[in-house]
Amino acid sequence: MLLEKIHSPEDLTALSVGQLEDLAKEIRKKLIDTVLRQGGHLASNLGVVELTIALEYVFHRPEDRLVFDVGHQSYVHKLLTGRLEEFDRLRQRGGLSGFTRSAESEYDAFSAGHAGTAISAALGMARARDLMGGDHSVVAVVGDGAMTCGMCYEALNDAGHTETPMIVVLNDNNMSISANVGALSGHLTALRQSFTYGKAKKAIKSGLYRIPGVGKPLARGIERIRDSVKRLLVEDRFFESLGFQYLGPIDGHDIRRLIKVLNKARAAGRPVLIHAVTQKGRGYEQAEQRPDVYHGVPPGYVEREDIEISAANGRVAMEELVAMAESDIRVTALTAAMPLGTGCNVFSAQYPERCYDVGIAEEHLVTTAAGMAAAGLKPYVAVYSTFLQRAYDQLMHDVCLEGLPVTLLIDRSGLVGQDGATHQGVYDLSFLRQMPGMVVASPRDVRDLKRLMRLSMKLDCPMAIRYPKSGEDMGARLSSTQELRLGEWEELLGGEDILILAVGRMVRTALRVSIDLLGLNLSCGVTDARFIKPMDEKQLERAARTHKLLVTLEDNALAGGFGSGVAEWLADHGYTTPLLRLGVPDRFIEYGMISEQTAECGLDAESIRKAILDRMTNL
Amino acid sequence: MLLEKIHSPEDLTALSVGQLEDLAKEIRKKLIDTVLRQGGHLASNLGVVELTIALEYVFHRPEDRLVFDVGHQSYVHKLLTGRLEEFDRLRQRGGLSGFTRSAESEYDAFSAGHAGTAISAALGMARARDLMGGDHSVVAVVGDGAMTCGMCYEALNDAGHTETPMIVVLNDNNMSISANVGALSGHLTALRQSFTYGKAKKAIKSGLYRIPGVGKPLARGIERIRDSVKRLLVEDRFFESLGFQYLGPIDGHDIRRLIKVLNKARAAGRPVLIHAVTQKGRGYEQAEQRPDVYHGVPPGYVEREDIEISAANGRVAMEELVAMAESDIRVTALTAAMPLGTGCNVFSAQYPERCYDVGIAEEHLVTTAAGMAAAGLKPYVAVYSTFLQRAYDQLMHDVCLEGLPVTLLIDRSGLVGQDGATHQGVYDLSFLRQMPGMVVASPRDVRDLKRLMRLSMKLDCPMAIRYPKSGEDMGARLSSTQELRLGEWEELLGGEDILILAVGRMVRTALRVSIDLLGLNLSCGVTDARFIKPMDEKQLERAARTHKLLVTLEDNALAGGFGSGVAEWLADHGYTTPLLRLGVPDRFIEYGMISEQTAECGLDAESIRKAILDRMTNL
Repeated sequence: MLLEKIHSPEDLTALSVGQLEDLAKEIRKKLIDTVLRQGGHLASNLGVVELTIALEYVFHRPEDRLVFDVGHQSYVHKLLTGRLEEFDRLRQRGGLSGFTRSAESEYDAFSAGHAGTAISAALGMARARDLMGGDHSVVAVVGDGAMTCGMCYEALNDAGHTETPMIVVLNDNNMSISANVGALSGHLTALRQSFTYGKAKKAIKSGLYRIPGVGKPLARGIERIRDSVKRLLVEDRFFESLGFQYLGPIDGHDIRRLIKVLNKARAAGRPVLIHAVTQKGRGYEQAEQRPDVYHGVPPGYVEREDIEISAANGRVAMEELVAMAESDIRVTALTAAMPLGTGCNVFSAQYPERCYDVGIAEEHLVTTAAGMAAAGLKPYVAVYSTFLQRAYDQLMHDVCLEGLPVTLLIDRSGLVGQDGATHQGVYDLSFLRQMPGMVVASPRDVRDLKRLMRLSMKLDCPMAIRYPKSGEDMGARLSSTQELRLGEWEELLGGEDILILAVGRMVRTALRVSIDLLGLNLSCGVTDARFIKPMDEKQLERAARTHKLLVTLEDNALAGGFGSGVAEWLADHGYTTPLLRLGVPDRFIEYGMISEQTAECGLDAESIRKAILDRMTNL
Repeated sequence: MLLEKIHSPEDLTALSVGQLEDLAKEIRKKLIDTVLRQGGHLASNLGVVELTIALEYVFHRPEDRLVFDVGHQSYVHKLLTGRLEEFDRLRQRGGLSGFTRSAESEYDAFSAGHAGTAISAALGMARARDLMGGDHSVVAVVGDGAMTCGMCYEALNDAGHTETPMIVVLNDNNMSISANVGALSGHLTALRQSFTYGKAKKAIKSGLYRIPGVGKPLARGIERIRDSVKRLLVEDRFFESLGFQYLGPIDGHDIRRLIKVLNKARAAGRPVLIHAVTQKGRGYEQAEQRPDVYHGVPPGYVEREDIEISAANGRVAMEELVAMAESDIRVTALTAAMPLGTGCNVFSAQYPERCYDVGIAEEHLVTTAAGMAAAGLKPYVAVYSTFLQRAYDQLMHDVCLEGLPVTLLIDRSGLVGQDGATHQGVYDLSFLRQMPGMVVASPRDVRDLKRLMRLSMKLDCPMAIRYPKSGEDMGARLSSTQELRLGEWEELLGGEDILILAVGRMVRTALRVSIDLLGLNLSCGVTDARFIKPMDEKQLERAARTHKLLVTLEDNALAGGFGSGVAEWLADHGYTTPLLRLGVPDRFIEYGMISEQTAECGLDAESIRKAILDRMTNL
């Protein structure tokens, strides 16, 4: 095994290209074995095996900085930078992160998780190097999917302008998480098809030179025209316009050629963009066929027979939306490069012309939905909680300021498990609650989600419905067929001493805690506080008057979240009823299983019961 | 007066081009007279007089949608759409907004304030039109400055891909608020210089056709090459790459030509980008010379002799930073197209190589600062509070997750006056307080600001220092020369019954209220709660134990702000001390004078005194 002998990138420099190719085979096998067992990002890592080897071979000094955008394609990098042994504990609590984390290794130049940050970070590092007189290289590795993200463009524009030496490797597999969207994608495809540009260039050149009667004086003029053609075809003007030298397209699986081009880029002394064409999922047939499905796989994926593409809650919301769209032509759905993850594919299957995938572009996503709403449509924006953070300003100004009827379907809310700190959906209640005129709701189960969807159709204002990936059905007994009214909470269990105000999926836990407490002779009621904003002030007032202790329970940050809203209300209305706020503490919650994270936050039934008993003792 | 006869854009269609040109003169005079008296955006509006006339002439149906990016260049549009009489009350409370607001007129297609949203909104409207079977035109008018903004690119990319008919007018005056930055800017300049492209094109064509021995078969090949050259020079590949038909560059002050090109664009049936070159400040000599200074002018500007470019607080912070940079080479400063407004010009005058203007690109701004910090620098990010909203996600992940020592110098915090709802800096305390590991501070005056700056140098973590535009000096008597300690509040006045915990500029008001209350025999202390996070728990605990009423006072939203943090702390620590939270209510605060807005929010001394007395009565 060659891989076992690689403890740092420097060890690569002793290998021949043939050995590097053998190493690629070993790594590919390791990736497939580990990720299918442990879960994680498979297809993207299989696509960058040779590219990463070449990068580490050329930029092997510890001071060289490799910045991987998103970081989910950094597994090969981890294997080559001394983390082979820990690799079996990928994405496990206390093990390796599924992304780059600078705390994990000196070779992880920047912590990542969301798309589009690498070029900005790399430019900052390159400028720091220039100021401090270093001579190391700074390289950002960015997927073509992330190139739909406005931040990349902001950074390219800034970098091209200042001429700081840095390298951007565009890892072009024509596939972000699902199929790429946008004009640039078509443009990259055209470039890929010009892979035979060498041949074309020759033809033009010889053709021109063979024109009879063309002597030296004209040759210079033609030289210029030919150069223009070359620039147009090869050193494409798109990146040149932004100030980058363009190298490519090159075969991203050809290690020898990659090393040559990377060395050339290093010597350029200015911003260079290398366009490497790779194949996502390469070397694992199923992943090559369906790279979208094999983008991220759950643990033990290989043994499962059924492929559940959509998360349950997203699917339920979209099935309901399909039904609503049937009777209302104003309904549209939008997603930012997450058609499968959010369940949007369910809607687009029925209404392809009313479903829009705008690319990894959350700012644009929200504002273009606002434009639709301003023009009389009823847009539904399906987005992960963590990515919606990118559109704070657009939500505030473009949606809320005019009170436009944009409905947010916020998936992956709350604690998300193995993707860890950069993907936790635990801030949405906090930042949405600040926005004037925004309705913020969270269903306790799929039945409730359907009722909230129906309510959203009747509201003519901004609304957010947030839910976790997996949808539960708490059964018909607890459910009501009554129509929901805006801002109305629901008392599920009466109780005299204590009242738990629970949000979303925490309602189920609250019911269990209530039953446990009854066994200890404490009467603890449970209210489904499905509206975080506006709150049910009538019920809240009654609760504050009649209970010894109020408890708020949410899978959201305690800072500024639902419990914070209740504390504000009590203070503002002069109530001094004791309040116990339970939620996610004020620190980043790392990767692990959702159950582990829940326990870490004290949000499992046992911790909650204990916290309530503690507080009751000290009242 | 022609202008008085224009009640809607339709009235323009009866005028000849000569009359339209006369109208332009009248409008220019009206703009100069009104804006110099009332204050507002002058240079940008003077630059778009002819462009706006041509737009309204061609797209005069009420159903046509003109979306002005930012909206500060919409004054001409307002004058042509029935708002001439109200124009004298521009930016006054109850008068016209300084931006487009759909509530103000059916001709204001979208409410704006921040840069970069117009193309997204227009695309949403164009798609709505397509779904609903309309035939009207949708036009986004975007300045070249806004083109550094990533959102524009996200929207162009999406629009180019789908081929929905829409028009983007690039209003290229090579000047955003200050001189443009970035590679694209240089690119646009090159395009402008190719204004004589027609001549060049002809030369190439005739040159090629005059090559002896070149017959028809080759002519086709050359045709293709010529087309490439033409595309390269004229229909520039940058926008073509993004899927837009490119028309231009054209003279943005030539009404006849503008009308012709706009009609051509309307007929194109696909996304078209018109590149119009205009002169900012045109027709008013001072503004032509210094368009940055005349970008936005305060009321009565013409009478003032001294030009105070930097706001006081920003200038103080930057002067301090200059001193710090002298002894520490790690210090850098960054701004997003606001070098004058934030005072960054003071720093760049001393350290041009350590000062970076990244364009209107707040996402990139924050992440590239994080990259600098990760590489060992000590970056200071000077930014307006309202624009920092664009970087919520980057602050959370790229700065806070790794605890990188990026310091935010947040200008224009609190109520901002005439720029109104889209520019209020009243959410920063709320959204920054949610971020794990972020230190959030606000100085009561310039002396305190200097002390916070010095503290920031010692801290190795994310820190935000927020302040309003104008800096006050409360005098040496109240000030201390002691070094600040992280999280320590300062008791300024003792008091037994009531304690006001005041933030930033509200400290001065709190002192006044305290003195007023003393006259009513109420003992009211004042503590400067300069650290919003972490809070001074020791002082807070003592306050909660010893006072009948705690009052929080902040020029920030009540939802999630400082008072919310105090309410959380009291609840979490089992205190039932009554708490009165005073701050900005949960709605958008419109334009007006800061004093009017302060009164509207109940944050003037009289309202505060009254609120405290009310609550004391009801304890």
